[in-house]
Amino acid sequence: MRVLILGGDGYLGWPTAMHFSQQGDEVCIVDDFTRRRGHLERGTDSLTPIATMQERVDAWKQISGRDIDSRVLDICDWEGICSLFSEFRPDAIVHYGEIPSAPYSMIDRDHAWETQRNNVEGCMNVIWAMKDITPDAHLVKLGTMGEYGTPNIDIEEGYLDIEHNGRRDRLPFPKLPGSMYHLSKVHDSHNIHFACRVWGLRATDLNQGVVYGIHTDETEIDDRLLTRFDYDEIFGTALNRFCVQAVIGHPITVYGNGSQTRGFLNIRDTIQCIDLATRNPAAEGEMRVFNQFTETFSVLQLAEEVVTAARHLGYNAELAHVDNPRWELEDHYYNPTHTGLLELGLKPRLLSEELIETVLHTVERFKDRVNLRAIDPATRWR
Amino acid sequence: MRVLILGGDGYLGWPTAMHFSQQGDEVCIVDDFTRRRGHLERGTDSLTPIATMQERVDAWKQISGRDIDSRVLDICDWEGICSLFSEFRPDAIVHYGEIPSAPYSMIDRDHAWETQRNNVEGCMNVIWAMKDITPDAHLVKLGTMGEYGTPNIDIEEGYLDIEHNGRRDRLPFPKLPGSMYHLSKVHDSHNIHFACRVWGLRATDLNQGVVYGIHTDETEIDDRLLTRFDYDEIFGTALNRFCVQAVIGHPITVYGNGSQTRGFLNIRDTIQCIDLATRNPAAEGEMRVFNQFTETFSVLQLAEEVVTAARHLGYNAELAHVDNPRWELEDHYYNPTHTGLLELGLKPRLLSEELIETVLHTVERFKDRVNLRAIDPATRWR
Repeated sequence: MRVLILGGDGYLGWPTAMHFSQQGDEVCIVDDFTRRRGHLERGTDSLTPIATMQERVDAWKQISGRDIDSRVLDICDWEGICSLFSEFRPDAIVHYGEIPSAPYSMIDRDHAWETQRNNVEGCMNVIWAMKDITPDAHLVKLGTMGEYGTPNIDIEEGYLDIEHNGRRDRLPFPKLPGSMYHLSKVHDSHNIHFACRVWGLRATDLNQGVVYGIHTDETEIDDRLLTRFDYDEIFGTALNRFCVQAVIGHPITVYGNGSQTRGFLNIRDTIQCIDLATRNPAAEGEMRVFNQFTETFSVLQLAEEVVTAARHLGYNAELAHVDNPRWELEDHYYNPTHTGLLELGLKPRLLSEELIETVLHTVERFKDRVNLRAIDPATRWR
Repeated sequence: MRVLILGGDGYLGWPTAMHFSQQGDEVCIVDDFTRRRGHLERGTDSLTPIATMQERVDAWKQISGRDIDSRVLDICDWEGICSLFSEFRPDAIVHYGEIPSAPYSMIDRDHAWETQRNNVEGCMNVIWAMKDITPDAHLVKLGTMGEYGTPNIDIEEGYLDIEHNGRRDRLPFPKLPGSMYHLSKVHDSHNIHFACRVWGLRATDLNQGVVYGIHTDETEIDDRLLTRFDYDEIFGTALNRFCVQAVIGHPITVYGNGSQTRGFLNIRDTIQCIDLATRNPAAEGEMRVFNQFTETFSVLQLAEEVVTAARHLGYNAELAHVDNPRWELEDHYYNPTHTGLLELGLKPRLLSEELIETVLHTVERFKDRVNLRAIDPATRWR
């Protein structure tokens, strides 16, 4: 299968590329280093020292004997995207190529618009290129559980059967996104749904939870294959940030009371989900939606798990509640469905103390690289 | 009241500006002539010979004795928008300043993106400027009934009370927009809803039906105050186009079987609705949604009304069904609620043969200006 990975230099994109390559698929990765440039702007960096895209590809070739085609391209470049689709003719497009940070999108108007423009224009180019050049290809698009927000009803996978005044329809699940970034993903979902309904394209929209973890089968082979690990207030995600805080002796900062509950998954399960979705394509004209996470935790529970694991390793970890910089409900109902990927065969690796210990050990190895200025939240929603 | 009218040089914007000015409100209009430029690109024009924005404002001053402040500004220019808000400090912002054409947005990728970029970026600038500069102002934003599409359930005004698995919530009504343009309005609605929920802004989202008619109390005073009248396949709307076809002896072209049903309203009722919404602002933190139309017709019914009226005036009008260039359901359920504006006091002027005759007479006056190349549909959805 020819698999095109947009954002193939990223936290998830690079491990995904190695995974498909290892399976014998023909892989092309595309990136214009938006994340690396975002870190330059903020004066931050990945905790793990990551190789350049070119070094990664060379190391992978040397280690596995397999080629990964890599291209430096802004997917907002329409002519470039057309050339890419015409040359590579993908069977599947795995689209990670978006700015994924809620805090980044809330810094000010310029960051809000940069996020929405980059994400919506890039995704629009992909669907037009599919329509014009590879109409049978399958788009595997990363959305986010944050598109749904926290409604007071069970969250279904993308659609809801509605009965209203004695009539019925199955309609897109209403969305309550909580940042300019989450809004951009809602816009994408609507545009993709249109492309499937009107042009007959195939797409799978994966509303992913918060990903944690540092290693996949391929990244742990060699340091040159390491993926990035962000822990800063802008690009870092909760569990990764908590582990860094535990190792460097910084209080583990829970935003608000910590009751806000989210879906989480291990980076290895992300790879598994992408593989399952890609090898079981959506039907012609279908926008299939899966909620991609394996379990839910409150932020406080997660922090407590890190405290426990860290103390067992001898760290003097402590919780601290800080003013919530975000606008979000802290006490809310949360019961999202996530059966679609399990039915396709997903075997979840649930969060364990052992996993947290692995992350803590890796953080320990690179703790001299921690930038203390980048940890506390500086970006506020109001 | 200080009323800022974005898109104040347009079909609805200009009559709205004169209306508020006549009521004694302080009016500022902003336009960068996107519509006039769109016509230049397509080689088409308004049927009515319209004055320049500067001539209009001068004529209005001469006739009414009142000033309308006018500015040439692209609302996607963030610095310009900030200066405008700081100087004029609007109490209400009536936002017509978007590209409103479904066919235009479906020409190709560039027109699709131009439409979404222009509309979403402009509206984003408005909400950020409100947040930063005039947080108590009230946004009166023109959306479209086309955001909803044609679901198989009654369409409510913006929100739906949902009961699901024994729990309840009131959530945004699910949207099934039918073009890249309609999608842009759905994106706007989500962004505005966020701004109200998170920043506490006030907004009224008016999901407008198809507007017909040529005159308001102010436009008919003097030819220099005429508003534009589009009949071409790109910018024209159904009833206006049908009237032009009847007068020039062109078949009245119904797309497909004509069963597709939509909400319609008279341009005079648009002005009335905008006035009511503006003088009865939404609450702090509220995105109030009204469905702004007065009656529903199938496209075929509308065409038949024009045929009847035209024949009474001696025209040999005939219907012709043409291949539907759009992707849309032709036979569908359609029952949208529209009580909110009636409750605020809207007195509808329903479609009458007399109204159609008035339009036909005006078309007759300018029939030498009709561009025959611009009438038949050239833009296809697939």
